[in-house]
Amino acid sequence: MCPLHTFSSVARSHNFAASAVSRRQQFLIRSLGGVRGSAPSRRMAAGVTNLNSLGLEADAGSILKRITPPLDSGLHKGQAGKIAVIGGCREYTGAPYFAAISALKIGADLSHVFCTKDAAPVIKSYSPELIVHPVLEESYSISLVVAEVKKWMERFDCLVVGQVLEGTHFSWLDCISEIMRHARQSNIPIVVDGDGLFLVTNNLGLIAGYSLAVLTPNVNEYKRLVEKVLGRNADDQDAAEQLLSLSRSVGGATILRKGNADLISDGETVSVVSAFGSPRRCGGQGDILSGSVAVFSSWARQQISEHSERLNFSSSNPMVLGCIAGSALLRKAASLAFAENKRATLTTDIIESLGASLEEICPAK
Amino acid sequence: MCPLHTFSSVARSHNFAASAVSRRQQFLIRSLGGVRGSAPSRRMAAGVTNLNSLGLEADAGSILKRITPPLDSGLHKGQAGKIAVIGGCREYTGAPYFAAISALKIGADLSHVFCTKDAAPVIKSYSPELIVHPVLEESYSISLVVAEVKKWMERFDCLVVGQVLEGTHFSWLDCISEIMRHARQSNIPIVVDGDGLFLVTNNLGLIAGYSLAVLTPNVNEYKRLVEKVLGRNADDQDAAEQLLSLSRSVGGATILRKGNADLISDGETVSVVSAFGSPRRCGGQGDILSGSVAVFSSWARQQISEHSERLNFSSSNPMVLGCIAGSALLRKAASLAFAENKRATLTTDIIESLGASLEEICPAK
Repeated sequence: MCPLHTFSSVARSHNFAASAVSRRQQFLIRSLGGVRGSAPSRRMAAGVTNLNSLGLEADAGSILKRITPPLDSGLHKGQAGKIAVIGGCREYTGAPYFAAISALKIGADLSHVFCTKDAAPVIKSYSPELIVHPVLEESYSISLVVAEVKKWMERFDCLVVGQVLEGTHFSWLDCISEIMRHARQSNIPIVVDGDGLFLVTNNLGLIAGYSLAVLTPNVNEYKRLVEKVLGRNADDQDAAEQLLSLSRSVGGATILRKGNADLISDGETVSVVSAFGSPRRCGGQGDILSGSVAVFSSWARQQISEHSERLNFSSSNPMVLGCIAGSALLRKAASLAFAENKRATLTTDIIESLGASLEEICPAK
Repeated sequence: MCPLHTFSSVARSHNFAASAVSRRQQFLIRSLGGVRGSAPSRRMAAGVTNLNSLGLEADAGSILKRITPPLDSGLHKGQAGKIAVIGGCREYTGAPYFAAISALKIGADLSHVFCTKDAAPVIKSYSPELIVHPVLEESYSISLVVAEVKKWMERFDCLVVGQVLEGTHFSWLDCISEIMRHARQSNIPIVVDGDGLFLVTNNLGLIAGYSLAVLTPNVNEYKRLVEKVLGRNADDQDAAEQLLSLSRSVGGATILRKGNADLISDGETVSVVSAFGSPRRCGGQGDILSGSVAVFSSWARQQISEHSERLNFSSSNPMVLGCIAGSALLRKAASLAFAENKRATLTTDIIESLGASLEEICPAK
């Protein structure tokens, strides 16, 4: 079994490099951030767990255990989570499916997809478990599309935006912007990935200052975001500090910088998830992550609202906790799937390992 | 293995609380009905099986054994049951699939789905076992849709109505009402769920006085039904008495009130199925139930017509027996699926466990 290691560096002051201790932290975090398969990174995964003498050490296993709600026969349908994925178009149907089915496999009760008309029958055919709305229809006006989504919006615990929406002539991005604005008005968390990041990078107002937003950029998406927001190049040497600064610059939206080690910051803390997952880089793993972060952050939000006094997490931000949990679970599931399938490992194999991975960490009674 | 416990309280008099014995019954039934995960409910599931000194004790395992017809190589296709599901639309394709495939997995020979034109290819793609009719077509008149369904109607042993039909501009509800009227004229049993309940709640005449109708409301659907029919709020304290009264008020249609414990009444008896199933509340389990109730009530009807003298059930109403059997089998299948899949349990996993669950109770020779 692959051990889970997470640590969090609480950097409450803008003077991040104030002491010898924090310089040491920076060195170690630098060794992790963005360095793919380097010796320091593997050393981290193997044992170093606490870089943080300034704050609490975060542990992904412990976070997963504490935010995952107990299963109770008195629950009603929907109480374990209702997730919506906005995305899916003529070319791309797998991405929204991966996100939506991952949410169910982790334990959400209902998973909806809002996609283009031609993507809908395909996404439906992948699984009868999903509720798929073909509302992104070219003959509709933007206001009609938004009205169709708004009818459902209040029911959702989290929205995943940005599974790919390319390849159409209609301006879906205007629709998505409107949907995001409405979600924000209704205090519904939003996980932004893929094309959603393109949208957000060019319209930072959509997420600026919204603490219930999570961005999950990969290497290239992160580069573009850093250039746009900070006006400089993405930096692997000072990865944690730059991420902290980036998150602060967008008013505290949580950013999960995907890489060999995932770095997570909301402008207050920087957490790293570096457990080894799988060397396979088959497409779709980012979609598992966005669906997982949606569920875990919803659970964390609920747990914090109900039991904040005894949770004692390294961060009190449910979106950060959701990112740590999602990243750690994906890595564990990927390692299980790879152990079984080796080079043939596909995203669907990883999805099939989500349940066993979660069960190993926090067994359902 | 999860034991099956069912008990039935026969309340033949309107004076439900006439004796100390019946007061005790009321207390115990109250402890079950609608109480979310309470200790009394768990105690029931663990061992209490007989609340009924006034009548026969019903046992789900025994009912399942006696209504499930023996498999005989001399049978022809169709003799083990022909079920039709009316439902399936642009957004919802999983629900009618779950109901229809569950009927087959339990042992019915043929399972038809009548749905909208755009839902049909998707439902077909879930399984080649189903016969799917895309007759709910917007360009058709109501009379043409009804004529299309009527052509098939006489062949069916039971109709399941009300897998979701939202999201279209055409008034499917008028079509469904007409189809239900025709089924009733032909003495074909009808199981009503989902949107069908919305329809029935606003047009009680469709099922009033029809003893071959079953309504399967969840918590919210039950609330609306009680408010409409009895003009008061749904009551968890006197759940059994209220259900009895509700069923009488709609002239003896059987009502299966879904909850932590399922309560079943036809206005003559109140039965409870409280065996523990699964704590997962993923969407679609109600559809397994409606498909199962359709098959089991058809079988019960046939068994009663052929062997009434030696069945000696706690109720002579095949719809009640079908509800008890369907509820108990779903719970058993859910418990098997949960034991294997834990938090990742989805409705398709439960469907895959229907066969093994039934085999364990009444093995096919």
